[in-house]
Amino acid sequence: MANDPNKHQHKVGGRAAGCVQRVTVHRPSLENNTADAERLIESLKPQLNSRCVSIDFSVLRQLPELLRDSGHLVRCAMLKTDACWQVAGIKGGADPSPMAGLAVDLGTTRVVLQLIDLESGQVLSETAFDNPQLKIAPDILARIHYCEQPRGLRHLQALIVDGLNDAVARLCAAQELNATDIFLTAVAGNTAMAHLFMGLDPRWIIREPYIPAVNRPDPVKPAELGLSTNPAGRVIVFPNIGSYFGGDLIAGILCSGLDSRETPAILVDVGTNAEVVVGNRDWLMACAGAAGPALESGVASIGMMAGPGAIDRVTIHLPDRRFELHTIGDQPPRGICGSGVIDLAAQLFLAGMLDIRGKFIPENCGQRLYKDENGIDHLVLAPAEASASGTALTISQPDIDSLIRSKAAMYTILETITASVGMRLEELDKFYIAGTFGSFINPASAIALGMLPDLPLERYEAIGNSSLGGARQVLQSPDGLEKIERIRSRITYLELNVNQEFMNRFSAAKFLPHTDTARFPSIRLHGDRVRL
Amino acid sequence: MANDPNKHQHKVGGRAAGCVQRVTVHRPSLENNTADAERLIESLKPQLNSRCVSIDFSVLRQLPELLRDSGHLVRCAMLKTDACWQVAGIKGGADPSPMAGLAVDLGTTRVVLQLIDLESGQVLSETAFDNPQLKIAPDILARIHYCEQPRGLRHLQALIVDGLNDAVARLCAAQELNATDIFLTAVAGNTAMAHLFMGLDPRWIIREPYIPAVNRPDPVKPAELGLSTNPAGRVIVFPNIGSYFGGDLIAGILCSGLDSRETPAILVDVGTNAEVVVGNRDWLMACAGAAGPALESGVASIGMMAGPGAIDRVTIHLPDRRFELHTIGDQPPRGICGSGVIDLAAQLFLAGMLDIRGKFIPENCGQRLYKDENGIDHLVLAPAEASASGTALTISQPDIDSLIRSKAAMYTILETITASVGMRLEELDKFYIAGTFGSFINPASAIALGMLPDLPLERYEAIGNSSLGGARQVLQSPDGLEKIERIRSRITYLELNVNQEFMNRFSAAKFLPHTDTARFPSIRLHGDRVRL
Repeated sequence: MANDPNKHQHKVGGRAAGCVQRVTVHRPSLENNTADAERLIESLKPQLNSRCVSIDFSVLRQLPELLRDSGHLVRCAMLKTDACWQVAGIKGGADPSPMAGLAVDLGTTRVVLQLIDLESGQVLSETAFDNPQLKIAPDILARIHYCEQPRGLRHLQALIVDGLNDAVARLCAAQELNATDIFLTAVAGNTAMAHLFMGLDPRWIIREPYIPAVNRPDPVKPAELGLSTNPAGRVIVFPNIGSYFGGDLIAGILCSGLDSRETPAILVDVGTNAEVVVGNRDWLMACAGAAGPALESGVASIGMMAGPGAIDRVTIHLPDRRFELHTIGDQPPRGICGSGVIDLAAQLFLAGMLDIRGKFIPENCGQRLYKDENGIDHLVLAPAEASASGTALTISQPDIDSLIRSKAAMYTILETITASVGMRLEELDKFYIAGTFGSFINPASAIALGMLPDLPLERYEAIGNSSLGGARQVLQSPDGLEKIERIRSRITYLELNVNQEFMNRFSAAKFLPHTDTARFPSIRLHGDRVRL
Repeated sequence: MANDPNKHQHKVGGRAAGCVQRVTVHRPSLENNTADAERLIESLKPQLNSRCVSIDFSVLRQLPELLRDSGHLVRCAMLKTDACWQVAGIKGGADPSPMAGLAVDLGTTRVVLQLIDLESGQVLSETAFDNPQLKIAPDILARIHYCEQPRGLRHLQALIVDGLNDAVARLCAAQELNATDIFLTAVAGNTAMAHLFMGLDPRWIIREPYIPAVNRPDPVKPAELGLSTNPAGRVIVFPNIGSYFGGDLIAGILCSGLDSRETPAILVDVGTNAEVVVGNRDWLMACAGAAGPALESGVASIGMMAGPGAIDRVTIHLPDRRFELHTIGDQPPRGICGSGVIDLAAQLFLAGMLDIRGKFIPENCGQRLYKDENGIDHLVLAPAEASASGTALTISQPDIDSLIRSKAAMYTILETITASVGMRLEELDKFYIAGTFGSFINPASAIALGMLPDLPLERYEAIGNSSLGGARQVLQSPDGLEKIERIRSRITYLELNVNQEFMNRFSAAKFLPHTDTARFPSIRLHGDRVRL
């Protein structure tokens, strides 16, 4: 993704698909002495097939001179809200500089930006930075509490806005553009981050009954937020469904195309929570649940985020159960990331080293297994001499138990939301996995563990940073805002009640791959072990 | 007017007629956990009977705290554009401070402001100041040329905006308000002044084919203009029809109520030009023409604007033709204002001292008449010892000739526009006269001169500063903007071609009261003199 920013973007058609309209404005005469603004509007209306077009005040200020200097041929950056179009930027028709857009994935931890050519829809460049609010607090809850201090909210807002302005300056410098060449910005983030970015009081988001300041923010002028982009332009902040279903997920749905499919599919985004949406072009059912930190980086002492030295792929070769560890950047192993843990557990299970309860099978683990002073089993992945730190990398039975609870929670969430719409998981035509987790995970391993359903592998599709992708799509199509609102208005949010039925499903899913082995026909069991 | 600002305002009904909505917002719960903004919108919709309500971003920032502090009872300053409502300001329901509006008559020479209570529609106070752009140039043409200098436009804009901010500070201080208590501002001015105020390039207004930057400006945020009023609020700048028919005249139509009458009426505003509108609720026909400076203050050496010491009423008592001069402020006479000149000429005519060509009749003028070294006749109004300056106040034959050309131009314009819609002047049910000219003129005198048609006196109505009045009305009714646009869209502008027919009418009107005396039945002539 980071190296080929255009890789995952949906196909964009010709000029009509972009957010820029080229228009030849009627020249004035004594017979047609309508004002400049109204002549531009009248020239745009038939092109847009709309009766409602208005012009930003900053555009108005440039208009008389620009029309006459450009021979009445201009390019307009257009934004469509409801049934009305807004001219949110203007340049001469022959001016070679692009009219740019900025797509932003506003993560709690990491912020990713793409600069887009609004006319062609092409990605011009991409950059990312750590959310500067991390220095106030790593987690969103603590940041919201920080807002209760005098000027706390303003401080957090300034941090993120300054960070964005710095990143914009870098992106633009590399492309020989100015920040004022950016007319439209689309920002997708969770509900709390969106509030902090807009300087809206987030304190009621975390207090019962969990109320955001706004669900559907109108497009905002950059100056209202302190952004350095063109003052005539607009900042689109993705809407939310509530405190726990943010604009990042709506962007994810847009990016996956779930909302325009005929047959139902599923979208999973795994972060601190697992967020899941099932649906098609007619309906969307969403839920979120704690699937445990084990799925991202939280496994015991050796867990780490995907990065250089992280074990991301594990193969255990039979019959001698030789371990082959792959690390990111082919460096000596420093730890293990989420996809590595899933690979490891699946390979341990498939190699007969874990039983269906997820317990180490000593006779198959051999010398790799040892008990510590507390009697807890540990399995050595890499001996001290092979690791980056000079300390052996090991995984413990409690680590595996924790992973199994996480995978069981994930499967239970998937089963519950699918059942809520009267479907079985096997009926899902497509299974989109968003985020870095989706990009690195080996679906076959997740299936072997019973974390993901036993669908044909071709149904699984990693869609990368879907929050960024959704933000970008809004800038690539003039009806982007309408698509977002159509998605938002069709989502039904399913509260996951942890009731007896949920607990029964969870208990059944705590086995490898599941107590109901018929659900995983590709995994053949013999007794409590995989048939080797 | 200045002493009783509520005198001329149209009746405003109860709360529903104002631009403030009091609303009780649904309290949030786990069942209704919609965001604050959307709950406010849902609470407003049934009250406004509208499906389209949006909230200004600045309001959004205050909303979570304000809703909870005010027990969910708030007051909203509302603006309706097209079919959509905008919340352009908010205060707690129990907060005793008013939500204010500002009506502005943005004159080329003088700027008049009224502070309005947006909830009751009452005028709170009024002030005025000389347009600070006068120090750059007294006339609008020179100011537009000044805009071609670097930063010329910015300078002119800053002058008027600073002047307004100073006046707002004075108005607010007197009422113990803050500028941020003002949420809506309505500004009526001619097309060029509106451009200078908005910082829009006016240079094409005065060059063929005479194109404004905009005809219908959208409401603007105060910060875009540099105004100190509440940043959540809006500034409504009246639309124009073109370079020569500005928002001040549209405000005048609104103020007169011409646009809601069943039977046709006429509105006349006399300034540098005479601007005339004939119409009713179905159609409006407008024109403007030079009626000569004599009608305002330009009569010869003793002409002056209405002010202390200006002769504003003249009576000539028969049979001895004794002059009774009334001055503004009952001070010794310093000069004569427009209404005084018209009174004077009418009284001279009615006293047999002017013939039907407007020439002095020496035998009836007696010792007041003398010839100067060039053989030009002068009539003494006040001898040296009675005048403020110690110099005699006199009026010359050329002064009278000039007045007669002006009155003939005025009558010809009235006759032409009325004829253009197939009517005669006598058919007009109502004759509104705007401006200070209208407030001071004695219609009987204007009729005697044949400047105004010989209608029953009760049909004449002085409506004062109709530009200010129209601006105020926009702030007194939630559908003000729609009314303005309805007026604007229905106006037909009549280009006054100075053709043979116009010249024939003009020639016929250059007599006192007219060559066709049947049109002035109340003035009885005997030969070329009034029957005494």
